[in-house]
Amino acid sequence: MEYDRDHKWVYLFEETGGEDKDLLGGKGSGLADMTRAGLPVPPGFITTTEACNAYYMLGKVFAEGMWTQARTALKSVEERVGKVFGDHTNPLLVSVRSGAAISMPGMMDTVLNLGLNEETVRGLAEQTGDLRFALDSYRRFISMFGEIVMGVAYEKFERVLDRYKAQTIGGRDTDLSTDQLSDIITSYKRIIFAEQHGHDFPEDPHEQLRMAIAAVFDSWMGRRAMDYRRVNRIPDDIGTAVTIQAMVFGNMGAESGTGVAFTRNPSTGEKTLYGEYLLNAQGEDVVAGIRTPNHISQLHDELPGVYEQLVTITERLEKHYRDMQDIEFTVEMGKLWMLQTRSAKRTGAAAVRVAVEMVHEGLIDKRDAVRRVAPTQLDQLLHPTVSADVQTKVLTTGLPASPGAAQGIVVFNADEAEEAAQNGTKVILVRQETSPDDFHGMVSAQAILTAFGGMTSHAAVVARGMGKPCVTGANALNIDYNHQQFNVDGTAVPKGEWITVDGTTGRIFLGQVPTTQPKLGDKFQEFMSWADELRILRVRANADTPHDARVAREFGAEGIGLCRTEHMFFGEERLAAMREMILADGVRAREKALDKLLPLQKGDFAGIFRAMDGLPVTIRLLDPPLHEFLPNLIDLLGELAELKMSLLQAKTIHEMNLLLDEIDKKRQMQRQVERLRETNPMLGLRGCRLGLLYPEVTRMQTRAIFEAACEVQGQGITVMPEIMVPLVSTAEELRNQAELIHEGARQVMGEHGMNVEYTVGTMIESPRAALTADEIAAHADFFSFGTNDLTQTTFGLSRDDSGRFLPYYVERKILEDDPFQVLDRKGVGQLIQISVDHGRRVKPDLKLGICGEHGGEPSSIAFCHELGLNYVSCSPYRVPVARLASAHAALNGQ
Amino acid sequence: MEYDRDHKWVYLFEETGGEDKDLLGGKGSGLADMTRAGLPVPPGFITTTEACNAYYMLGKVFAEGMWTQARTALKSVEERVGKVFGDHTNPLLVSVRSGAAISMPGMMDTVLNLGLNEETVRGLAEQTGDLRFALDSYRRFISMFGEIVMGVAYEKFERVLDRYKAQTIGGRDTDLSTDQLSDIITSYKRIIFAEQHGHDFPEDPHEQLRMAIAAVFDSWMGRRAMDYRRVNRIPDDIGTAVTIQAMVFGNMGAESGTGVAFTRNPSTGEKTLYGEYLLNAQGEDVVAGIRTPNHISQLHDELPGVYEQLVTITERLEKHYRDMQDIEFTVEMGKLWMLQTRSAKRTGAAAVRVAVEMVHEGLIDKRDAVRRVAPTQLDQLLHPTVSADVQTKVLTTGLPASPGAAQGIVVFNADEAEEAAQNGTKVILVRQETSPDDFHGMVSAQAILTAFGGMTSHAAVVARGMGKPCVTGANALNIDYNHQQFNVDGTAVPKGEWITVDGTTGRIFLGQVPTTQPKLGDKFQEFMSWADELRILRVRANADTPHDARVAREFGAEGIGLCRTEHMFFGEERLAAMREMILADGVRAREKALDKLLPLQKGDFAGIFRAMDGLPVTIRLLDPPLHEFLPNLIDLLGELAELKMSLLQAKTIHEMNLLLDEIDKKRQMQRQVERLRETNPMLGLRGCRLGLLYPEVTRMQTRAIFEAACEVQGQGITVMPEIMVPLVSTAEELRNQAELIHEGARQVMGEHGMNVEYTVGTMIESPRAALTADEIAAHADFFSFGTNDLTQTTFGLSRDDSGRFLPYYVERKILEDDPFQVLDRKGVGQLIQISVDHGRRVKPDLKLGICGEHGGEPSSIAFCHELGLNYVSCSPYRVPVARLASAHAALNGQ
Repeated sequence: MEYDRDHKWVYLFEETGGEDKDLLGGKGSGLADMTRAGLPVPPGFITTTEACNAYYMLGKVFAEGMWTQARTALKSVEERVGKVFGDHTNPLLVSVRSGAAISMPGMMDTVLNLGLNEETVRGLAEQTGDLRFALDSYRRFISMFGEIVMGVAYEKFERVLDRYKAQTIGGRDTDLSTDQLSDIITSYKRIIFAEQHGHDFPEDPHEQLRMAIAAVFDSWMGRRAMDYRRVNRIPDDIGTAVTIQAMVFGNMGAESGTGVAFTRNPSTGEKTLYGEYLLNAQGEDVVAGIRTPNHISQLHDELPGVYEQLVTITERLEKHYRDMQDIEFTVEMGKLWMLQTRSAKRTGAAAVRVAVEMVHEGLIDKRDAVRRVAPTQLDQLLHPTVSADVQTKVLTTGLPASPGAAQGIVVFNADEAEEAAQNGTKVILVRQETSPDDFHGMVSAQAILTAFGGMTSHAAVVARGMGKPCVTGANALNIDYNHQQFNVDGTAVPKGEWITVDGTTGRIFLGQVPTTQPKLGDKFQEFMSWADELRILRVRANADTPHDARVAREFGAEGIGLCRTEHMFFGEERLAAMREMILADGVRAREKALDKLLPLQKGDFAGIFRAMDGLPVTIRLLDPPLHEFLPNLIDLLGELAELKMSLLQAKTIHEMNLLLDEIDKKRQMQRQVERLRETNPMLGLRGCRLGLLYPEVTRMQTRAIFEAACEVQGQGITVMPEIMVPLVSTAEELRNQAELIHEGARQVMGEHGMNVEYTVGTMIESPRAALTADEIAAHADFFSFGTNDLTQTTFGLSRDDSGRFLPYYVERKILEDDPFQVLDRKGVGQLIQISVDHGRRVKPDLKLGICGEHGGEPSSIAFCHELGLNYVSCSPYRVPVARLASAHAALNGQ
Repeated sequence: MEYDRDHKWVYLFEETGGEDKDLLGGKGSGLADMTRAGLPVPPGFITTTEACNAYYMLGKVFAEGMWTQARTALKSVEERVGKVFGDHTNPLLVSVRSGAAISMPGMMDTVLNLGLNEETVRGLAEQTGDLRFALDSYRRFISMFGEIVMGVAYEKFERVLDRYKAQTIGGRDTDLSTDQLSDIITSYKRIIFAEQHGHDFPEDPHEQLRMAIAAVFDSWMGRRAMDYRRVNRIPDDIGTAVTIQAMVFGNMGAESGTGVAFTRNPSTGEKTLYGEYLLNAQGEDVVAGIRTPNHISQLHDELPGVYEQLVTITERLEKHYRDMQDIEFTVEMGKLWMLQTRSAKRTGAAAVRVAVEMVHEGLIDKRDAVRRVAPTQLDQLLHPTVSADVQTKVLTTGLPASPGAAQGIVVFNADEAEEAAQNGTKVILVRQETSPDDFHGMVSAQAILTAFGGMTSHAAVVARGMGKPCVTGANALNIDYNHQQFNVDGTAVPKGEWITVDGTTGRIFLGQVPTTQPKLGDKFQEFMSWADELRILRVRANADTPHDARVAREFGAEGIGLCRTEHMFFGEERLAAMREMILADGVRAREKALDKLLPLQKGDFAGIFRAMDGLPVTIRLLDPPLHEFLPNLIDLLGELAELKMSLLQAKTIHEMNLLLDEIDKKRQMQRQVERLRETNPMLGLRGCRLGLLYPEVTRMQTRAIFEAACEVQGQGITVMPEIMVPLVSTAEELRNQAELIHEGARQVMGEHGMNVEYTVGTMIESPRAALTADEIAAHADFFSFGTNDLTQTTFGLSRDDSGRFLPYYVERKILEDDPFQVLDRKGVGQLIQISVDHGRRVKPDLKLGICGEHGGEPSSIAFCHELGLNYVSCSPYRVPVARLASAHAALNGQ
């Protein structure tokens, strides 16, 4: 790119107009916005992202004219502030901050108080009448500049400071005398001189500024920033802007202060100024936590004028940005200065309330409102949370790695977790970090807590996969495996103690803190109704019982997309009949066993049909490998061994005979179980393969469905059964099973003299089904993409076994996301695309849905929308998330 | 379709010229060919397949003109034969046969002696001077016509005949007197009258002919013929022709006779007339086996003129057809008549010899020769066969369901087979037919023998899948499970007796009949060299040891396409080191164990490189789940139970302590095994996932490969290693592993001061790898399609578990073929196609091969050729098959 000689590289805040974040960076853009709106912002200017890009193109040299423009802008700032940069008596100090369009960790941080040197520090002391303050500001500036701009290790400064602090009585920063501060400043400068091989700390304020701007530019290509961009696929050439702003001080007496505030309550969304402040303090003091800040409402009493002004400004900001703001301000000797404004982070509850109320206030329209709430934010609303009014003190806080709250006793290793869970004890697994070897313990635990690791650590990924609460990176945790306890700031928590983990916020509590299932109020319903107006995708639920069906309907499900019939077989009475069926010798015996199951299944179906009156219910025929219904082989062998040991010790012939009978029975079962055992059950005799080998099973299930449907329809309820054949990989399989189903349906309807509207379709869950969708569509009224299995087969990756390595894959970015959570567009998605194309070409009105767990994941839902599917189906509690995600997808597609 | 009024529906044999099989049918076409060539063929004519189609279009009515044309043709036949159809003194008799272009079971069979009635039978008696013969011919004609044309159940005639035979002394057909024959004829006619509701047997010969032709047409749409066509995807509208030919009789005295012959020996290919004949006999007599036929060479002495004529004719036929022929002839009172000629079936050995010799004789060119041998025929040559000079009598014969010969003792159920095999006993599993429940027994048996079932029965499909000899449908077997024996024609064979099964021919022998590995002579080598000249695909072998590599090279392999390194770990010493590696706690310990494996692997690689001097060797890095190297959990639990029982009975504290130590060790192993156990190992922690989690394994293998390569190259041998990363499903996996390999290679080559040319590539064996081949190709020098795993994942079908239902799928035609044998083009093939397109688009010179077992299967090889792959790789013994199949593919592609 070429720029002409007088290209504009630098903008005063008030000079801008219409330039966007891309040019000015997020921070600069906000300050410029506020300035133009006439709000009190300390004057300043921005060197643009273009200047950064030019810097790199020229081989790390400022673009021609940039520095001159910056000097000119600085002059203008001096004039407006009435101070002079580098002046010995009335010095202007500035802050220098980086600011790309996208907030990016790893870039250069803030340098405050720039402009101080041996001369100006005196001027500052005079201005403020506080030598100690001036020296302390100078000390902080040198170490900040030394570290950030000149690259000296922070510890070197820290060590000096610690030595001096140790000489004081209190041992704190604030206990240092002015003499000590002067000595520290000298030491700091010596360190810089030594580290920089004879280059002094720059005394010239303009040189300081030049170096600071260059350092911001340099940090753009720093290792961490580049890694971050690579991982997040942000291009390198967007560059960073630099914001240079006059310093204001909140620690210049009782009429000064500093604070942060939200324009509404970020937790509840209530429309009231929410925040805290400290008088006679700097921003750092609020963060340091030495003094306890006051609630913002107190400002009304302490500085009523400022408070009024603040209220007026926040109202203007909300009107300008049409969103709730998170602001920083400083009061310097009674004058209010705005230092930052940005869209405020908020809880899911707040997001919904703010969005709804802003529509009522006329600030935004319904579409904006829907856009404002991220689907994942609803997730918070739908999980148990620690009750809002809880008085218990937070023990510590980590990263909110997987939402929801749970209580349990502390255990420190996976085996114990498993053992305790088997005894019915609720446990929280606490580890430094987890590894694949901890997997069985994680399965057994109520929640997981780790001292290390981030949001994509093994623990985080696995826990989210299992839908378990998880807090990671709780660095305050000091775990002592040897003594089976952990310590947090002096509190020892031994194994066996109850704790509560709040994965939604990252908080950890001692004891059993009450959790609540949040109520979804009117605002929520109103909000969801707007989302529903916008979306195109239908949303159904995966539900296997009448109870689940009712829950799903309450959450707004528009039908059942997946009713897994096998879950109905797990009751005790049913399991016995099921085993009888599996172990039956020949068709006759199998049919006899199936006859016992028929009325039970029929009852379940009737209940579900009633709950879903008027809505479609997709019923999947028996799917899992049969041995899932049989006892575990290892257990059986253990029982057999026990029995044999008892035999050795038997006292009477009678006792022996009883034992021998028992052994015989168990051995028979053992043989059956061994016969049915499969090396890879996931790829074995299951799905429609069962129905092909044992057509009597399909016949029984068909009969149960249609007897239930006729009965319920006879009661005036509208039934819409959709019968789904699982794990089809050839068209012939579906043809065969569909024929059986149609036959059975005709027969039962004939018997009842009734007609039930129904359809027959199939899961698309093997790659071959997707690839041959054209042939399969000929026999199907609908396809439902079983993306769990499809992901397994497409990757060649068992979900049950991937826990040992998938988290590492995600952590090391071998995979962007866990493909069982976020649909893999490139692979699995390509197959779905092929399937949609092939299927609709043959049968344009083919109904298409998705019933894997991706059906409740927002980015996967967006993909389903793009593909033109008819519906997604997910677990009942995900239905609102899916409704909102569908609305977002529709909005983004316009 | 419309035909004009004088459309030609009927052709005299001599009238034809250039019309093809499609119009005349296979049989008619052969007879017409011979007639035109001037060979002595009984005169006759053909109604065309068009006539058949017209018949159906008109609603089962002869096309206009057809019958008139047939009458005219018949006149012409009368003239040429000098007999008259329906004449009372000199009657012409004809045979009527169906004949479609494709030989098709289920269609109407032959009707002989048509033209006989109460009058003409007298004429025949006069002509032949044999009243008994005339009456017997008449009887046979009526029952044949009654059954085939008029649809009377054959048993009804049979029952009458049996009654009369029971009245004779000998009890045979030939013992019936002329009076009895007359009575039988009367009874037969009554049966027809009764069955046909008052329609008499037609006395008018022209009516007989009209009905017979219509019956042939009708049988075209018979149930069996239609089923056959549906299954074999033959269209319905190709129609059948009808051949009407003057009868000749081989049973008119000592100068008459009948026989069959091959123009060369169909077993060895030797160029000498091969066949058998009977004087004064009809074709039926040869088949009935009442009299033993003579070897064809004896005809030279008995009827030298006829013999000479036969030799001359066969030579002419071979020249005409340029192929070995299978002929039928009849001699009627010294005159030779040719009744059929067709290409002769032959063994693989004969096929090769005939093809080579015909080239030398100038009959065909090399391309023809290559075309003449089916790749599957070579398969016979490469399996052990029952020695040709074996004197042992054949016990019985069934269908040759899976080639090869094997001996073993008879067992009748799968559990016993398994048990015996575990004790090292070789067994043959003998069953009525097999079911999925017999699978474990089939795995354990040397060969399988069943009394029922066809070439695609469960037993056949499973056995072929396992490469085991199998004979099915040996109907003579009378199996008595209760007494644990089978009977064949009075010979009882109890459990435990040795038998030999020859799956190549279908023969069963008593005892241990010697088998031989056939030698591949000069003719074979010459033949293969012609195939090699034609083919484009390279052929490599899958070989894991230096020995296998040498065998492969002898069979003509042009490299190793798959060297599975894990097979090298199964020796006892190696397994110990491998277990140490797997159970290692941490990287350090794992590396220590790997250090033990390194020299062993290096030695193996060196041996293979030497054997393949100058040829590429593709080495796949460690692939299987690690628990494959650990003891079986069930076994471990059994051992533990035993130890505990011993503990209960321990006599001394010392003994107890020893046992407790042992128990402790086993329990530790049990925990490890349980930890590594996977639900679906096929989709678990294996392939490159191992190398990603344990990079030290990849490093060790790389070092072993390059240390071996440097060492061997230093000895003047050309090494061409191609290192292959298994089970990749994302590009990042390959990038990561390739980096490790390149690093390791650089390091070792540096240490040796040597450069080894090598490449790095990947298996494409997950659908996702295929779908993202463009991304993956960026890091690969080659792709090798692992079609075994790719088939498993594409279908969602475990090879280990599919034995329970896949045979049913194939038998019921849910699947055309077992996809683990014949590559599924529509599904798996589509993925390979996508992969080839994506991969070559990004990297045009990407080397592409296939190393699944499909690499040795002819139709799959043809597909690989069509896709433009560079090579196929298969087991060493399949290499010649693959070479020939590749040549065929190239020829077909031209």
